[in-house]
Amino acid sequence: MAVPGHRLDRMFNPKTVVVIGDKGPMYMWCQGNLPFKANGGNLYSVQIDEKEIPGIEALGITNYRSLADIPEPIDYAVVAVPRHVSPYVLKDLVAVSAAGAGFFTSGFAETGEDLGIKLQEQLTSMAREASFNLVGPNCMGLYLPKAGVRFSGDVPVATDGKIGFLSQSGTHGIMFSLVAGAHGLHLSRCASFGNAIVLDVSDYLEYLALDDETEVIGMYVEGVKNGRKFFDTLRMASQRKPVVVWKGGQTEAGARATMSHTGSLAAPQAVWDGMMRQCGAITTNSLDETIDVVQLLLRSKLPKGPNMALLAMTGGQSVSITDAFAKAGLRVPRLSEQSYRELGEFFNIVGGSYQNPLDMAGTIQGSPEMLDRILRILDADPNIDGMAMELSAMFGTRQWKARPDSLDKMLDTLRDHMERSPRPFQVVMHPAHEETYVASIKQKFWERGIPLLPSFDRAAAASARAVSWATR
Amino acid sequence: MAVPGHRLDRMFNPKTVVVIGDKGPMYMWCQGNLPFKANGGNLYSVQIDEKEIPGIEALGITNYRSLADIPEPIDYAVVAVPRHVSPYVLKDLVAVSAAGAGFFTSGFAETGEDLGIKLQEQLTSMAREASFNLVGPNCMGLYLPKAGVRFSGDVPVATDGKIGFLSQSGTHGIMFSLVAGAHGLHLSRCASFGNAIVLDVSDYLEYLALDDETEVIGMYVEGVKNGRKFFDTLRMASQRKPVVVWKGGQTEAGARATMSHTGSLAAPQAVWDGMMRQCGAITTNSLDETIDVVQLLLRSKLPKGPNMALLAMTGGQSVSITDAFAKAGLRVPRLSEQSYRELGEFFNIVGGSYQNPLDMAGTIQGSPEMLDRILRILDADPNIDGMAMELSAMFGTRQWKARPDSLDKMLDTLRDHMERSPRPFQVVMHPAHEETYVASIKQKFWERGIPLLPSFDRAAAASARAVSWATR
Repeated sequence: MAVPGHRLDRMFNPKTVVVIGDKGPMYMWCQGNLPFKANGGNLYSVQIDEKEIPGIEALGITNYRSLADIPEPIDYAVVAVPRHVSPYVLKDLVAVSAAGAGFFTSGFAETGEDLGIKLQEQLTSMAREASFNLVGPNCMGLYLPKAGVRFSGDVPVATDGKIGFLSQSGTHGIMFSLVAGAHGLHLSRCASFGNAIVLDVSDYLEYLALDDETEVIGMYVEGVKNGRKFFDTLRMASQRKPVVVWKGGQTEAGARATMSHTGSLAAPQAVWDGMMRQCGAITTNSLDETIDVVQLLLRSKLPKGPNMALLAMTGGQSVSITDAFAKAGLRVPRLSEQSYRELGEFFNIVGGSYQNPLDMAGTIQGSPEMLDRILRILDADPNIDGMAMELSAMFGTRQWKARPDSLDKMLDTLRDHMERSPRPFQVVMHPAHEETYVASIKQKFWERGIPLLPSFDRAAAASARAVSWATR
Repeated sequence: MAVPGHRLDRMFNPKTVVVIGDKGPMYMWCQGNLPFKANGGNLYSVQIDEKEIPGIEALGITNYRSLADIPEPIDYAVVAVPRHVSPYVLKDLVAVSAAGAGFFTSGFAETGEDLGIKLQEQLTSMAREASFNLVGPNCMGLYLPKAGVRFSGDVPVATDGKIGFLSQSGTHGIMFSLVAGAHGLHLSRCASFGNAIVLDVSDYLEYLALDDETEVIGMYVEGVKNGRKFFDTLRMASQRKPVVVWKGGQTEAGARATMSHTGSLAAPQAVWDGMMRQCGAITTNSLDETIDVVQLLLRSKLPKGPNMALLAMTGGQSVSITDAFAKAGLRVPRLSEQSYRELGEFFNIVGGSYQNPLDMAGTIQGSPEMLDRILRILDADPNIDGMAMELSAMFGTRQWKARPDSLDKMLDTLRDHMERSPRPFQVVMHPAHEETYVASIKQKFWERGIPLLPSFDRAAAASARAVSWATR
């Protein structure tokens, strides 16, 4: 178990999972959790509707008419019943001492209707009275990639997840999981917690902070119920590992949208930002900003300061990468005299420049030896805290397609540098006209643990966040 | 001819092009210009190196030993000779009254060496004395997609180009051309002008402003030689069509990089920004920002104001799209009472919301009829100046792959709306985990003239620029 004795530990490390009320034709919850069964977990269904049962059993899942019939202790249940049935299901879950349940069921307070509000109040008081770990309702519940418990048939099963993710929005929870996967990064544990009537973001956050399988935490929140508890937990978590907080409803119009979405009343943004700083959290404004900084934190070493060496393939790109990093608040200092002396011994590229930024005039994409020499010189420079290097799909693609080993050799050189160097490093490559090809070679970067960012602006923003956090 | 009587008109509309000094194994300039020959243009080579001539002739290009032997008047020449030969070539070009030439040759003042500076001074005084249209040197020269004159074998030949692009950087000129092509957008005329010793950005800009094939102008500049002339021309051009100016060297570190790159001395950024506003130019900070606003200006109608209706597929995305547009300075107002009345008649999607933003709870991706009804209501709303709509690759991909006609029908509905509506419209779709699939369906959007942006932030930034320009 990952955090023995924590109230959420059984739910986050389930041996037995039950799907309650799944329906055809998709049987999305049964389908989504088949990997859990394949991994040796006990996966059961509870469904009383006779016409749904054959479809569930066809998936190889044993169905019971009642929760009480389940032969093992229930660690986690997915509840997908109509809203008016949900209190009865909760009663049964409490009766069998289930460790927790995610209520996909919606139609509660978020509707603004009297019936929905009343039902939510009923669920809340029942769950609180029983100290029941109710996730949601109106949510996608838990995603445990290692166990094979999934909230969507599209998200990956993976055993190497290091990112804990918490989301008040189901979409953002699934989207983040998918986009992380598209970057070769996986989640350790994820909770989409919707209306958060019992367990709030702080409860999950506490677990992820203590969980040693989780190295970085990300979250999307629109509002928190108990601000004091949240900030205390966030401060504690941020002392243990980086916590990236993406807040929805930062603008007046956005806050109006959170009211319709999760009924969250937004705090004034300036107050929120101040609390985030005090807690040592990293703040972001979008999915892309969140995945970018998470990627850097996981794949790159932590920066000791803001001084960047920037390597570009051409003069125009050397200007652009420098503008982007300088605007993000990073520094692009002159190198040491020793670096200039050493670079001067061989750096005679026509049209190139080795001030800082370095304009490599395209050559190093074809010469791993020269690249290695340059990286070693920069890595020994006391003026430099980290490096970012452009690779040009425009120049490289033709050659890389013709001779894939030329790309492999260059990436091996970069991997060796990253293993050797105590400093952060990243590659920035705009896909240009080769979107599909660039997508196809991303895995070569992941396999070598090389962070790959798609634009100078995104790379610079992520670096600035990593520097802020590492030098806080 | 596009601008009869203009000094650059012959060069920009060539009937005869000569490549001077091309070399194997790639013969990049001969190869790049083969489409010009295929289009019926006269393409010749001048090369005196006996061992290069067979390779040139093997491409079907007639080679001459001397410029004087070319049987037609020369409208444009590409000069790729060593730098010390370049004055002799220029002398010959003047002697045969060539209309202009792009000097790919580098090694001039940008090197900082005495010899390079002296050679550049020599070229400058010779060209000025003869009023010769010298493009560059140290540049990629002209790209005329319609004629088939190209500065790279990768950039498209296309007859539907409407974007004029000017670039002080060869990389940014080629990259912009490639990235525009990857958006299904093409250039009318492009000049990469490098050291700009005779013709400066203002000269090209004047031509593009007057050229009726050019509907939008974009440019990348690091510095201008004659500020007064530039601002006067920019003001004139901006009165005729949108001009998007991407300035390199906006930061102190970036400005240092421009010194190494093009020897440009940057103006203080605040002064520059003020002049841009006075001229009515649209300013951007990166390639992506430039292509985004160009795409909107070309594909979407011009906004009358900042009031957006925002449509998202889920609650979480409705918050995010709203935050992004509101942060960019746009407004997301409440709809009119009539709109609410009409939407209320059928908008009973569980978990959805039709305030503004609209949270469609995923449904309209499957129902072109409902989508059409909603678009018509919003289009008639007096509170709304424009619309942006999320499409979800996360939800849609499975269905679209299985039934491509379902995507086609939805896009037809959007196209019909765009043809009917006087207001700007755009689709925002994050590729999520389906990068390759999303890349493969982009053409379906282009064919219907639907602007497609990859993130809320980029869509919002482009919209804000379009609003600023249209309401200036």
